[in-house]
Amino acid sequence: MTSISIIGTGNMGGAIAGIAAKGGAEVQLVGRGSDQALTGDIVVLALPYPAVDEVIAQYGAQLAGKTVVDITNPLDFSTFDDLVVPADSSAAAVIAAKLPASHVVKAFNTNFAATLASGAVGDQPTTVLVAGDDQASKDALLAVVRAAGLRGEDAGSLKRARELEALGFLQLTLAVAEKTAWTAGFALVK
Amino acid sequence: MTSISIIGTGNMGGAIAGIAAKGGAEVQLVGRGSDQALTGDIVVLALPYPAVDEVIAQYGAQLAGKTVVDITNPLDFSTFDDLVVPADSSAAAVIAAKLPASHVVKAFNTNFAATLASGAVGDQPTTVLVAGDDQASKDALLAVVRAAGLRGEDAGSLKRARELEALGFLQLTLAVAEKTAWTAGFALVK
Repeated sequence: MTSISIIGTGNMGGAIAGIAAKGGAEVQLVGRGSDQALTGDIVVLALPYPAVDEVIAQYGAQLAGKTVVDITNPLDFSTFDDLVVPADSSAAAVIAAKLPASHVVKAFNTNFAATLASGAVGDQPTTVLVAGDDQASKDALLAVVRAAGLRGEDAGSLKRARELEALGFLQLTLAVAEKTAWTAGFALVK
Repeated sequence: MTSISIIGTGNMGGAIAGIAAKGGAEVQLVGRGSDQALTGDIVVLALPYPAVDEVIAQYGAQLAGKTVVDITNPLDFSTFDDLVVPADSSAAAVIAAKLPASHVVKAFNTNFAATLASGAVGDQPTTVLVAGDDQASKDALLAVVRAAGLRGEDAGSLKRARELEALGFLQLTLAVAEKTAWTAGFALVK
């Protein structure tokens, strides 16, 4: 049985915990700053990007050997016009460099929380795009997503996190400008 | 009446010419290497990125004062793993730097040709995302797109071309991997 720990109890953490449970995983949901030991083979950092460093500092040793899922959109929220990570890289790559003993996977950053909970973007199924360099890690996460009734797709190597984060950024700007709803966004059509 | 010249007679050039005509514009469609004078106030470079420089060299002077629409996805097609423009920039920004007397707009690069012709991505209307720094140029193009029955949305300043090109890149990789059809792609849901 896949076991998933989710750190972060915001709307994304809650929605991902719901998917994990629907998908048949053993789910541990912990708040930031909790001192619980992480029981999951997969650990989802359901946190805003600026909070990741603190969590890595706290849990770093426990994350060794695990799949770590980065869901962040590392926007400069003061300008809403830039990302705070290098343009040729990604938050996922930055996190992977800090966690060399973990398998870092990018996922969920192109999904608004409401579409993870509803399983739909308009009349299309919600697609979770997953990028990473360890195939087994991606496959384990994709299996849970699909078992929960969502569409999951392998979006390639961790290098593609740059493009996933650009898509997440664009989608946020379009939602703020009311070009798409916070319950919608981009749907990947088959 | 809006007048649009389209340079390039490939599947994108043909599809954009169809939209322009449906949208009530006066349409001139010219092949690469043609010596026809450009009659449109809006000029669409419906060309692969490597062909743009030659066309700028040929038509540069004629493009002054016009709206120039860049539709390219500047992939390194030998690797399918990188873009050939600087990571913190875009093909549109590179082209804009070469055409300081034109209003450069990014559009159509997130649309597969088939979805421009059909007007639909699955059961969603095709959305043309338009980014640029000159509002009148964007509005003129968006008016034609909308008059043709497609959805058109202002995606922000020309700086957003970086994210539009990342989305176009991602969408191409997903189509090549058969995660989406060439008749589909990402739909922006309202």
